[in-house]
Amino acid sequence: MNRKIFLTFTFACLCGAVFAQAPSGNDYAKFVNPFVGTQGDGNTYPGAVVPFGFVQLSPDTEKWDWGAASGYEYSDSTLYGFSMTHFNGTGVPDLGDFLFVPSLGKVKYFSGRKQNPDSGYITRFSHANESASPGYYSVFLPKDNIKVELAATERAGILKFTFPKSDSANVMMDLSHVLRWDVVWSNIRFENNQLVTGMHQVKGWAKERYLYFAARYSKAYDDCGIYSDGKKMIYNTYRFRSRYESAGKNLQYFTSYKTKDKEVIMIKVGISAVSTEEALKNLDAEIPGWDFEKVISDARNKWNKELQKITIEGTQQEKEPFYTSMYHAFLTPTLYQDVDGSYRGFDQNIHKANNFTNYTVFSLWDTYRATHPLFNLIQAGRNNDMIKSMLAHYNQSVDHLLPEWSFHNNETWCMIGYHSVSVIADAYLKGLRGFDYKKAYEAIKTTAMNPDYDNVLTYSKLGYVPCDLENESVSKTLEYAYDDYAVASMAKALGYDEDYRYFLKRSQSYRNIFDSSVGFMRGKDSKGNWHANFKADKYDGSHDFTEGSSWQYTWYVPQDVPGLISLMGGKKKFSAKLDSLFIANTDENEKGIEDIHGIIGQYWHGNEPSHHIIFLYDYAGQPWKTQQRVHQIMKTQYGNQPNSLCGNDDCGQMSAWYIFNALGFYPVCPVDDFYAIGSPCVKQATVQLSNGKTLQMKANNLSDKNIYIQKMFLNGKPWNKAFLPFGEIKDGGSIVFEMGSKPNKKWGM
Amino acid sequence: MNRKIFLTFTFACLCGAVFAQAPSGNDYAKFVNPFVGTQGDGNTYPGAVVPFGFVQLSPDTEKWDWGAASGYEYSDSTLYGFSMTHFNGTGVPDLGDFLFVPSLGKVKYFSGRKQNPDSGYITRFSHANESASPGYYSVFLPKDNIKVELAATERAGILKFTFPKSDSANVMMDLSHVLRWDVVWSNIRFENNQLVTGMHQVKGWAKERYLYFAARYSKAYDDCGIYSDGKKMIYNTYRFRSRYESAGKNLQYFTSYKTKDKEVIMIKVGISAVSTEEALKNLDAEIPGWDFEKVISDARNKWNKELQKITIEGTQQEKEPFYTSMYHAFLTPTLYQDVDGSYRGFDQNIHKANNFTNYTVFSLWDTYRATHPLFNLIQAGRNNDMIKSMLAHYNQSVDHLLPEWSFHNNETWCMIGYHSVSVIADAYLKGLRGFDYKKAYEAIKTTAMNPDYDNVLTYSKLGYVPCDLENESVSKTLEYAYDDYAVASMAKALGYDEDYRYFLKRSQSYRNIFDSSVGFMRGKDSKGNWHANFKADKYDGSHDFTEGSSWQYTWYVPQDVPGLISLMGGKKKFSAKLDSLFIANTDENEKGIEDIHGIIGQYWHGNEPSHHIIFLYDYAGQPWKTQQRVHQIMKTQYGNQPNSLCGNDDCGQMSAWYIFNALGFYPVCPVDDFYAIGSPCVKQATVQLSNGKTLQMKANNLSDKNIYIQKMFLNGKPWNKAFLPFGEIKDGGSIVFEMGSKPNKKWGM
Repeated sequence: MNRKIFLTFTFACLCGAVFAQAPSGNDYAKFVNPFVGTQGDGNTYPGAVVPFGFVQLSPDTEKWDWGAASGYEYSDSTLYGFSMTHFNGTGVPDLGDFLFVPSLGKVKYFSGRKQNPDSGYITRFSHANESASPGYYSVFLPKDNIKVELAATERAGILKFTFPKSDSANVMMDLSHVLRWDVVWSNIRFENNQLVTGMHQVKGWAKERYLYFAARYSKAYDDCGIYSDGKKMIYNTYRFRSRYESAGKNLQYFTSYKTKDKEVIMIKVGISAVSTEEALKNLDAEIPGWDFEKVISDARNKWNKELQKITIEGTQQEKEPFYTSMYHAFLTPTLYQDVDGSYRGFDQNIHKANNFTNYTVFSLWDTYRATHPLFNLIQAGRNNDMIKSMLAHYNQSVDHLLPEWSFHNNETWCMIGYHSVSVIADAYLKGLRGFDYKKAYEAIKTTAMNPDYDNVLTYSKLGYVPCDLENESVSKTLEYAYDDYAVASMAKALGYDEDYRYFLKRSQSYRNIFDSSVGFMRGKDSKGNWHANFKADKYDGSHDFTEGSSWQYTWYVPQDVPGLISLMGGKKKFSAKLDSLFIANTDENEKGIEDIHGIIGQYWHGNEPSHHIIFLYDYAGQPWKTQQRVHQIMKTQYGNQPNSLCGNDDCGQMSAWYIFNALGFYPVCPVDDFYAIGSPCVKQATVQLSNGKTLQMKANNLSDKNIYIQKMFLNGKPWNKAFLPFGEIKDGGSIVFEMGSKPNKKWGM
Repeated sequence: MNRKIFLTFTFACLCGAVFAQAPSGNDYAKFVNPFVGTQGDGNTYPGAVVPFGFVQLSPDTEKWDWGAASGYEYSDSTLYGFSMTHFNGTGVPDLGDFLFVPSLGKVKYFSGRKQNPDSGYITRFSHANESASPGYYSVFLPKDNIKVELAATERAGILKFTFPKSDSANVMMDLSHVLRWDVVWSNIRFENNQLVTGMHQVKGWAKERYLYFAARYSKAYDDCGIYSDGKKMIYNTYRFRSRYESAGKNLQYFTSYKTKDKEVIMIKVGISAVSTEEALKNLDAEIPGWDFEKVISDARNKWNKELQKITIEGTQQEKEPFYTSMYHAFLTPTLYQDVDGSYRGFDQNIHKANNFTNYTVFSLWDTYRATHPLFNLIQAGRNNDMIKSMLAHYNQSVDHLLPEWSFHNNETWCMIGYHSVSVIADAYLKGLRGFDYKKAYEAIKTTAMNPDYDNVLTYSKLGYVPCDLENESVSKTLEYAYDDYAVASMAKALGYDEDYRYFLKRSQSYRNIFDSSVGFMRGKDSKGNWHANFKADKYDGSHDFTEGSSWQYTWYVPQDVPGLISLMGGKKKFSAKLDSLFIANTDENEKGIEDIHGIIGQYWHGNEPSHHIIFLYDYAGQPWKTQQRVHQIMKTQYGNQPNSLCGNDDCGQMSAWYIFNALGFYPVCPVDDFYAIGSPCVKQATVQLSNGKTLQMKANNLSDKNIYIQKMFLNGKPWNKAFLPFGEIKDGGSIVFEMGSKPNKKWGM
């Protein structure tokens, strides 16, 4: 972030609502900067949201570009309006449902584009007049002199517009707006002069997504109307048609007012995936009155309740990226049910969530790595509900599969592997028992045995996914093998010995695609021949590898690092190869690589396949190299600025990585009962575990230079291993690090 | 019908299932010919249905032609397949949901057209190998040697296919098929190898119609698949896609089998407007097993239970049109709720029908005339539920209007007036008290006062609908005036004197558009000028008149015939003018008139505006002319052949007209407490009134020649008036006519 932007943000904080909500002594929300990750590839959004809320009410500055999946790009200076739903940090755009656009004068129904900001309803704004804090967002629209403020609850949002004096103040809502994709159908009803309901159906990343709204207006509108394809829906004296309701592919509606100067018009909007009736119920339950300030302060209280789960000592500079990471980690998965427990299932039927809370947006290829492991420590109750939501998905899945990458009751089939099994096994092995774990194991096993899914059947027979039969075959083999280890681990714990042996064997499949002649993982065809023309640093995002090269994927054996070390010729050779990863060349001109950021040699922190790699030094007897890399990455790939996130936040995975590493450890193999120790990046932290116990972490002597562990005490006793057993911290306790400026090469061996 | 067709039909009756279901002594179903009205403009369908059933499982021979609104035209010799829903006798096509198509060999996914029967899945058939009876339909498809049989329950149907030996017997289901309109969206799920679920959304006559299905297969299919735009939905090894589910605009699916010779494959299909879950519930509740014969016999029993509500004496020839009329009158409105009471409302939310049964398909411009009046006598319980359904519509209507022409939770805005008020007032005034009549009156009044609807507000101020502001202004003025009389009548009965006087005054509005200089009703503009270039016999279907000319509409003052007579200069002049109606010329080459049939001069029995006219002779002191015309129309415009219905059955209105006139009376002004006496057309009839009482009618001496009433005895006492008080028959009783070949001009004066 450049200085101008920094000053802008500081100004925004000072002039915005951040201090309007008098924070108590425990106001952690003040350390959260929702703009972090909004510039570049972070793909976060700055709008109003509560923890894990279904509603993310936020401005949309971009709706076509694949690279602005959250709808907001900090570099933009125009916005379309304010919509109800957004993803946090995905690589694919969608959502952006129900765009509200305030203006004066003649209402425009065509959005225009930022290249020509006067061509449609798109309008200019400046970061100088914009502010955001947890649960609150504000911006001033200079063209029409309108101040916009946004606040949210779980299933509703409230938009506050401060208009100038005008004969024609209006708010248009564009049901055809959605990020990147197509609205197939929509409908609108003016229920009365202060209530509008409607829905739209989106054919997007999700093949068939329905969302409903109910919008209450603080003041009866003077006029209202529905437009379709730019034409007003009017009377037809040949055959009457309603002017108070319509349905079709491309619908907008307006409400208009005569306003006094600084007159406030508020719209509160409930959403539901079930019906307008449920959307209205949600709205009326969550925002019964018109107290905008209360919605803001309630949201901030909700945030503080979550943020205080880890308290750290440090400067503002240190706290900002930490609490912003906590904030981002607690956005997704999102709530996906109505106040009465109704939700739309994967069979498009309406279900009731009995004895659980239904969640959606499962970016599992990302989040099984650190997000769900973090949840096991400090969001165990929600993680339990998330697993129940995944099991509901399984029950409703016509393919008998657990979720892969799902949102809003649709499977997107995005990414690879079957990492639901890791999330579930991880939770079970970490002691979570709030779900029916025997049925969960059934679901896990059925998923891992699916005869249709991505050549899993061939893999189970040949011991690898053949590159001539399946794309991304190397990545799939490696990730299946890890997932199989997760199944095996749970099977073992449940005493299912036969399954344990079967899946443990499958988890060794990585060996079948390691080509010792080149020292890398490599594609192999169904006849057993290596894929020709191999280049380890070739970006091969859609053939043998998933969003990466063999350089990254060769390290992906979290379930058996000793086995990998042995394959590579022992710890010395392994470490040397690992060293070379960070200096290997990445040709940034290569096709596909424009999406890759956080590049350190061929280590790419901006994407998940690299996330566990620096901890492999722990296994190879060189933990000080892990320690050094942790600090390097924490410093260079994170921060408190809009452009501080080097890659997609991926529904909190990048942020969860930060949180673990601030504390000094990381779950390399999530289903194992230990963490790899990295190097703490905050001086002191208190973690409120979900079981009510407290874990204290202290890093004595920590400084920018003192990044190496000299000594460590676990629960008061000296600890010399580079791995932290879950059993030692699950009931709270203390971790004390003594830090120094030079590696203690005897520690952690 | 020509002789060939007649023979064909006779053969079909003999060879089909009509006698397969051993009828008891009270088998009235054997007198029903479901083919009546399938040729020409009757627009009926021959398929399997139970009384007022939601499912009408019937073959579709036509899907584009506006003139074949039921999907079946007897003159066709090809059919597309068999779909689950059909209208009885509407003027506009829609429905035809979920078309099942059996075939051998390579499955075709494109329908083709009858002009080229080998171009798609359309296939030939012959009436020689077709049969239909209440609740059962059968046809043989010679191309692939497949016998098709259909049966139905209220919410489900069962298709029985008898295949020859084949390696590739298959049944394709085309979700993109619908009569005349567009499928916007559909989805399919293969839940397992014997169950498929799905839905489609239709943008048609109804702007936004959702229908769901669940189809169980009697035998596990060997193979199955989903097609979209002619391409199979298959695996994609780049990103997995399910082959067991899909969604989109143009979807078909197939199931296939290896069959032995004469192997039977059955598919039973439940439908719901709520969800696939409800469709499956409906199916399993109504067709729990695979007993095809039981479904047929249950349906026949249901029909006999309804048909026996009026038993008549007569020949087969006399009974066939009568019981076929009873059959057609008892098809519509149709059930529109699931077995658990769930239904989709006009707000697209899912409601529960508490303490009533929800019905749909309200062709009210037609059915307020005779259908609902008939229901008040012999289907009062259902009529009560229909009124509750109309009130539910009102409650859900964003326009605060009772239904005009609605089906499947959509208002089509088809036709004119607000005849719901007549149906409700009629029922109330005939003693129906099962609904909340005070709230019903509120709905009636609000509807009649709607400021947005078709210039009702202007009408209420000016006393007429001005022809410069509104199309069909004369017809609207006249029909509003009648409807206002209905409101006034109910207001009077409820003691709402002010309303009574207000609406009674409005009911006299007909006077304002009678131009005595030409002797006809005539358009008048908002300045009070008569519409220029008036021609009474000009077909003016879309300007001042609705589907007609002033010749028909001039008689439309059922609420005040004496007033009209007086306007026209007294009974003599009135009668003379009425005589001339039947000899006035109709230019059948005029544009629009191709839809008009049943022409006798300018009397057009094929459309509703004429339906009350012949009874006006009763008011003018010439009841023998009514008697003569009744017999003329009953003989010439009805019958027992496919082409016997001279106009659209219009959801039973044409048939209800027949039933009333068979008995000898007709409700000219439905809300009045008397009927006009026509002339009985059956020798004896016993009517089981809904209150459990019995009304006997006997027409002594009736013959083809003896069509004139000589004497009449009402409950044993001589009756000399041409009007039959409702009070004299509501608790049963007897009507005896003495018939003769010459008019008794003293009777009925």
